Amino acid sequence: MAIAVKAVSFALVAQVLGIAAIVMVLIWTISFRGGLAWEASNKNLIFNLHPVLILIGLIVLGGEGIMTYKVLPLRKEAKKLIHLVLNAIALILGVIGIYAAFKYHNESNIPNLYSLHSWLGIGIIVLFGIQWIYGFLVFFYPGGTSEIRRESLPWHVLLGMFVYILAIANAALGLLEKLTFLENGGLGKYGAEAFLVNFTAIITVLFGAFVIFTVLSEPVTVEDDYSYSAI
Amino acid sequence: MAIAVKAVSFALVAQVLGIAAIVMVLIWTISFRGGLAWEASNKNLIFNLHPVLILIGLIVLGGEGIMTYKVLPLRKEAKKLIHLVLNAIALILGVIGIYAAFKYHNESNIPNLYSLHSWLGIGIIVLFGIQWIYGFLVFFYPGGTSEIRRESLPWHVLLGMFVYILAIANAALGLLEKLTFLENGGLGKYGAEAFLVNFTAIITVLFGAFVIFTVLSEPVTVEDDYSYSAI
Repeated sequence: MAIAVKAVSFALVAQVLGIAAIVMVLIWTISFRGGLAWEASNKNLIFNLHPVLILIGLIVLGGEGIMTYKVLPLRKEAKKLIHLVLNAIALILGVIGIYAAFKYHNESNIPNLYSLHSWLGIGIIVLFGIQWIYGFLVFFYPGGTSEIRRESLPWHVLLGMFVYILAIANAALGLLEKLTFLENGGLGKYGAEAFLVNFTAIITVLFGAFVIFTVLSEPVTVEDDYSYSAI
Repeated sequence: MAIAVKAVSFALVAQVLGIAAIVMVLIWTISFRGGLAWEASNKNLIFNLHPVLILIGLIVLGGEGIMTYKVLPLRKEAKKLIHLVLNAIALILGVIGIYAAFKYHNESNIPNLYSLHSWLGIGIIVLFGIQWIYGFLVFFYPGGTSEIRRESLPWHVLLGMFVYILAIANAALGLLEKLTFLENGGLGKYGAEAFLVNFTAIITVLFGAFVIFTVLSEPVTVEDDYSYSAI
């Protein structure tokens, strides 16, 4: 298919949204919530690492990893390497971000893994990891047969989009969950911080939408690019 | 594009998931939360209409409205009419479901429209309404020129998928938000009700995924069906 707009237009809008989302989550965690720390007597600073690492890693770098394959005016092998590396960084930051949430819970005597956000989060990071390993082995090194590559590429794209959309939705779930806790603790429902967190979620959702629009739109075409026709 | 699986296979799995999600939300609202009512001194019964109407209407009937266009072995005009009618019912139930949430808030002195769930919900119903009206005017009656139809069909499909994915994500947000309120009020974090609500959300997300997979997979082909090539 491919909608009749150049992927690069969507990708450019996504850059602005991605930067905005990162700035917003940093303002929230640093200016409103006291900052970031791996070790601290104020355990909230450990928690703060969780949204920051997930948003910068899994969401924004993961989104860039998806878009670069579509929009960079490079040869396929170069784009594949960039795709692989960006998604590896996204995955690593995602794992550290999840670990930060467990660390915060454990040091604050908060139970683990009871919420929908946590369940989906574990599912997403596992699927993301499987996607990455499959992609590495089949499309990079040692590489599958051309039949396996051809047959599984659309599934790699489809599962990748599915996991990515789930990650975006789960980021919104996490922001809403945290804000609900804070509001139950007395934070103003219509105050500046509540608006900041809600708009961070909305900008994140829009970023995710533009990443997916980029995938679904017309690719940048370079010499060997027609061989990439998964979507 | 189209992944190499018949759309009907995905649509069949979706039917099972859709029925399961409806059964689960009914068990939750009726057996665990006291039932459904439009007028009641126990205002919670009014609230209970909200997840039930949204899930049956916007999510499941909306999903069926999307899938029928792809999988029913009928002529295009018949499928279009079914698509139009199912989405009209989905939209109407969605509006009534949203109204029930406002009614519950107003009669219980709970503030309106402060949460991410409520903001996204308003955005989704407005976009859904715009999609429906545009679809009606351009593709049904009086109908746009063939150029307008051809140019805008991919956008109709894309915006429709976007709004639908947002609706699925927002259903998960709503279930998590309500459960968080209940858990803050003392409900067991690892109890039967918490698991039921979380699994309702997961089944809903999987239903939504299979609806989207249906759209992205190989259509059922009938005589004039090749004219539908938006995706």
